Amino acid sequence: MAVYTDVPDEALAAFISHYDIGSVLAFKGIAEGVENSNFLLHTEAGYYILTLYEKRVNPAELPYFIGLMEHLAAADISCPTPIANLDSETLGTLAGKPAAIYTFLNGMSIRRAKATHCQELGKAMAEMHLAGANFSMHRKNALSIDGWRPLFELSRDRADTVCHGLTSEIEHELSMLEENWPKDRPSGEIHADLFTDNVFFLGDELSGIIDFYFACTDYFAYDVAICLNAWCFEPDESFNVTKARALLKGYSSVRPFTEAEFHTLPLLARGAALRFLLTRLYDWLTVPKGALVTPKDPMEYIKKLRFHRDVTNASDYGLGSVDIAS
Amino acid sequence: MAVYTDVPDEALAAFISHYDIGSVLAFKGIAEGVENSNFLLHTEAGYYILTLYEKRVNPAELPYFIGLMEHLAAADISCPTPIANLDSETLGTLAGKPAAIYTFLNGMSIRRAKATHCQELGKAMAEMHLAGANFSMHRKNALSIDGWRPLFELSRDRADTVCHGLTSEIEHELSMLEENWPKDRPSGEIHADLFTDNVFFLGDELSGIIDFYFACTDYFAYDVAICLNAWCFEPDESFNVTKARALLKGYSSVRPFTEAEFHTLPLLARGAALRFLLTRLYDWLTVPKGALVTPKDPMEYIKKLRFHRDVTNASDYGLGSVDIAS
Repeated sequence: MAVYTDVPDEALAAFISHYDIGSVLAFKGIAEGVENSNFLLHTEAGYYILTLYEKRVNPAELPYFIGLMEHLAAADISCPTPIANLDSETLGTLAGKPAAIYTFLNGMSIRRAKATHCQELGKAMAEMHLAGANFSMHRKNALSIDGWRPLFELSRDRADTVCHGLTSEIEHELSMLEENWPKDRPSGEIHADLFTDNVFFLGDELSGIIDFYFACTDYFAYDVAICLNAWCFEPDESFNVTKARALLKGYSSVRPFTEAEFHTLPLLARGAALRFLLTRLYDWLTVPKGALVTPKDPMEYIKKLRFHRDVTNASDYGLGSVDIAS
Repeated sequence: MAVYTDVPDEALAAFISHYDIGSVLAFKGIAEGVENSNFLLHTEAGYYILTLYEKRVNPAELPYFIGLMEHLAAADISCPTPIANLDSETLGTLAGKPAAIYTFLNGMSIRRAKATHCQELGKAMAEMHLAGANFSMHRKNALSIDGWRPLFELSRDRADTVCHGLTSEIEHELSMLEENWPKDRPSGEIHADLFTDNVFFLGDELSGIIDFYFACTDYFAYDVAICLNAWCFEPDESFNVTKARALLKGYSSVRPFTEAEFHTLPLLARGAALRFLLTRLYDWLTVPKGALVTPKDPMEYIKKLRFHRDVTNASDYGLGSVDIAS
């Protein structure tokens, strides 16, 4: 749940008067997004989402995130579209915080993804990757291979308190990944946080992608690897190869993998699992007991990591090389 | 903020299929109401509020609350209107909780009420009182004169830890009120919790009243007294007689006070202040330190109570007897 900032009605009315969307009819805090405050905004022109950026988002990076959504929306990717004010600006200030207004996106995140949802997700992700191709801005992925060791250092001393042997297991994994991380794969703007909460469906159809605040410039296949972890494991951490195959089929039907890219998938999936393991481990060890937000269990991601370690060939994910671009 | 229950998408779809409002397009938890979980529900037929009743509301009392809203809405009072399902029922079960769907009400609660807002509130409250006249159900006010002593007993031992001398001050006040509480004044269905959060405005115009979960059968003037306390004091606890006059003028322009009713106002205002003092005192002493919800300061209401104690005549509230029905 995320409503951190209280917005006085007079301040809201003044802010909205800089937009060509009529006056405010209703304004309600909504439980969506973890990093920011989000509000349902109903004006004479329709329904919108107003986002206030709280301190976890670096204001200097907002032009990249907002610009990317604007760029993708213009290329018909269904994502929140920033609304420009009368000065053609998409970013303003409200209640002392950076603020932006977005189109209201229909759809709901789903609890239990079926293979058809995974296929839709694969397609939409590939379309998003292609649509980002000519976006002019870039953002280094702070949570990729270069960022993992410094992040690990913050938890190293106490990792074994979570699970015996975890420190050395991470140390080995990290060294292996640092040695073998691919240097050159197709890359561009990726979402980097495509968990089920951030994908909306209407029935079986994908209706939109939200929450671009981890988006960055990195390997396309790394985005796919994050989704293999987030969408294709069952609650008992068993890997559902039907869902993986559907995800990869959906993706490659829009943007075929290169041979080299495809075969890096198990390694990227290990890296993606380590990335979420490390952030969760850090949160687990630092969030005070009894805090408002319960940190997510880091062990979920060590299990996912171990699964991918045993994958010898990317075709084990269910997609034959026949489907790969040559 | 109030979203306590997680609603699975499949359960929601099944629930909505019993209504003639099309299928679900969006569903988001909203930060409104303290006792229940509220969701924005967008369907093919429009926007609604779905309420799940959490354990603080007694399910046996829901037919009264929901019935009252239905009755008032039918009499053109702007309040959430319960939507009936295909079996003509307004109350169902979702995610194991009692649930109801209401019309979406435009407007926003205001931070700083002006006298014009108080006048609008007075009018709307009187219209609501008149519209409730022929409602067939009744509900005893558990938080009126008979309920205060048992409530006080729960905090009596520790009241002095909040403010020295508070125990004896409440004891004296309570005895005086028990002796002098009027036996017979115009009564009917009242809201009993008309704080600024529960009244929506669009600019200076009142657009709706929400949150009827303290509604009950009691003196109309007691509802007015609650509003004198909630709307007519400044943040420094000074009494704004211009706002009080506007509130009473607005009210009596729709439903004139009887002479006896009007002159009981200072006493009822003391009672209303004691009622909120006692519930806040109880919450203050029982809510654990560091809890999610910060309890409201009981001292606000002891100050209000003391103000009314010095009011010798109801006309001190700014309304001359010329405005009263003879």
